[in-house]
Amino acid sequence: MNRARKIVESLTAGRGMAAERGHGRASANIALVKYWGKRDEELNLPVTSSLSISLGRLGSEVEIGFADGMNDAVWLNSAPLSLQSPFVRRTSAYLDLFRPAPGVCFEVQARNTVPTAAGFASSASGFAALARALNDFYGWELGTRELSILARLGSGSAARSLEDGFVEWLAGDAEDGMDSYGRRLAAVWPELKVGALVLSAETKPIGSREAMKRTVESCELYREWPARVAADLADLKEAIEQKNMAALGAVAEGNALAMHGLMAATRPPVVYALPETVAAMRSVWQAREEGVGVWLTMDAGPNVKLLFEASSEAAVRERFPAVEVVAPFD
Amino acid sequence: MNRARKIVESLTAGRGMAAERGHGRASANIALVKYWGKRDEELNLPVTSSLSISLGRLGSEVEIGFADGMNDAVWLNSAPLSLQSPFVRRTSAYLDLFRPAPGVCFEVQARNTVPTAAGFASSASGFAALARALNDFYGWELGTRELSILARLGSGSAARSLEDGFVEWLAGDAEDGMDSYGRRLAAVWPELKVGALVLSAETKPIGSREAMKRTVESCELYREWPARVAADLADLKEAIEQKNMAALGAVAEGNALAMHGLMAATRPPVVYALPETVAAMRSVWQAREEGVGVWLTMDAGPNVKLLFEASSEAAVRERFPAVEVVAPFD
Repeated sequence: MNRARKIVESLTAGRGMAAERGHGRASANIALVKYWGKRDEELNLPVTSSLSISLGRLGSEVEIGFADGMNDAVWLNSAPLSLQSPFVRRTSAYLDLFRPAPGVCFEVQARNTVPTAAGFASSASGFAALARALNDFYGWELGTRELSILARLGSGSAARSLEDGFVEWLAGDAEDGMDSYGRRLAAVWPELKVGALVLSAETKPIGSREAMKRTVESCELYREWPARVAADLADLKEAIEQKNMAALGAVAEGNALAMHGLMAATRPPVVYALPETVAAMRSVWQAREEGVGVWLTMDAGPNVKLLFEASSEAAVRERFPAVEVVAPFD
Repeated sequence: MNRARKIVESLTAGRGMAAERGHGRASANIALVKYWGKRDEELNLPVTSSLSISLGRLGSEVEIGFADGMNDAVWLNSAPLSLQSPFVRRTSAYLDLFRPAPGVCFEVQARNTVPTAAGFASSASGFAALARALNDFYGWELGTRELSILARLGSGSAARSLEDGFVEWLAGDAEDGMDSYGRRLAAVWPELKVGALVLSAETKPIGSREAMKRTVESCELYREWPARVAADLADLKEAIEQKNMAALGAVAEGNALAMHGLMAATRPPVVYALPETVAAMRSVWQAREEGVGVWLTMDAGPNVKLLFEASSEAAVRERFPAVEVVAPFD
């Protein structure tokens, strides 16, 4: 039995009874201090802690039940997906951890309320919703900490999608990762907004799993990434506590650029930026020079997210008419 | 007496006799493994060694003599410069190290054959030519090692502009920097070409002196930069020895991107790239995917340099019609 499956057993053994169907929902999240690099590939254990903001209404919903037949049946936004699709392959590999017996298949209905075309990642909310749906289906009645651990086995950043608001994914140091889960910070910041600029819908030349693996393996500078993250986490928590937008913006922007710097220093280099990415970055800096309180962050891709407070929303929309605005605390 | 002046005294004491005029010339250079970060600001001593290729015909010429009057008189390309210009201020500050008595002024005629508009740096060749002109003027008859040390006091990368071909600027570890100078590698590679793409002639938002200082002071990742450079230098020397263009290109491109990665990870971040920079980078990668042997490097600015062999020149010119091509070994 593999290690991930052992963890599932240890968390769920002797609990609950399968219902007819299970349902789960989770919010997407965007990291303000990023997760880049695993210390354990199988359990998706991170080298460092990370800290995200939930995207509230935007997220994923999953319904699950057993299926007749020889294969899992997976729908996304009401459309049946090919067994060959990366989405189904990844989902089925994850579901292997939860089959009561080999050969038992699932039917999964997934719906994203994340506009994935807007460049928000849906895999975090997707696996978090799936973990919740499994919990509902099997009647385990697990808490968010345990669900965060289960969701992490599907996608690292899913560990941060079981709670709303600011969530810190604790790196932990246990070999089995039982201390590596998402924990909500008490702070609430209703004025905080996140904006998405869609710059490219093209498939990335290299996925983030592969890219972070390459960084960890080949990039000398990565050895100091944990020190950088530790400093940024401390600064970010202080900024959140004080509701200091300029401080939060500076940490998030600096951390994202540092992560992209690490990628550039990877062998061979990983560069997600497009000309449009740099143009958007420069527009953000220009806006800031003109007194608009807006900062940027980027994940492992070419798209740019904006961070600002409600008081700056009009100015941000004026400069970025195509921005999709999300209110995490609505 | 300041430390730089002491070094000048120790190198020149008791040597030569001033002539009427002195003349010097030096080639520009472009680093394949970059210099980023000083261990001594006053003496321009670097944290790491670096390795460049000379740009042959492109460079600077300087004529020097004593001047009447109360100020240095500096001409650039036959035009007299204002005393307030950064160029004159920097030149005069350097000349302070060489005045026989306070108040003695110089007349300096500088000519750049570097097309500075093409994004090639001229300060390296300028200070190297000035050191040579002073050597000629004062009749010191110093060797290239000593001249490299003197040139370095004006601009770090000038230490690499006293020799042709591939030049390694040894970091050294002496406190007075007497072991930190440029040394030519034996290798000759006549087929090697350097191309310049002019993407922006705008003044940089932050100079490289200030930017590298900020990196050293604020960037955790910088602590591993020496390890990165050591690995890149070893790989580059092997590539040069074997005349392996793909290996040389990969090291140079990776090292330049890693340096820009460090800048992005600096607090606050330093980003020189423009949208045009990323477009040019992607064109280079596209060309390579199509089988053209071309790689890129970048200094502390938005412009992109190309590295290729003569056999690829036609294909490079076809894709980059505006490229300025230099043959370092002509």
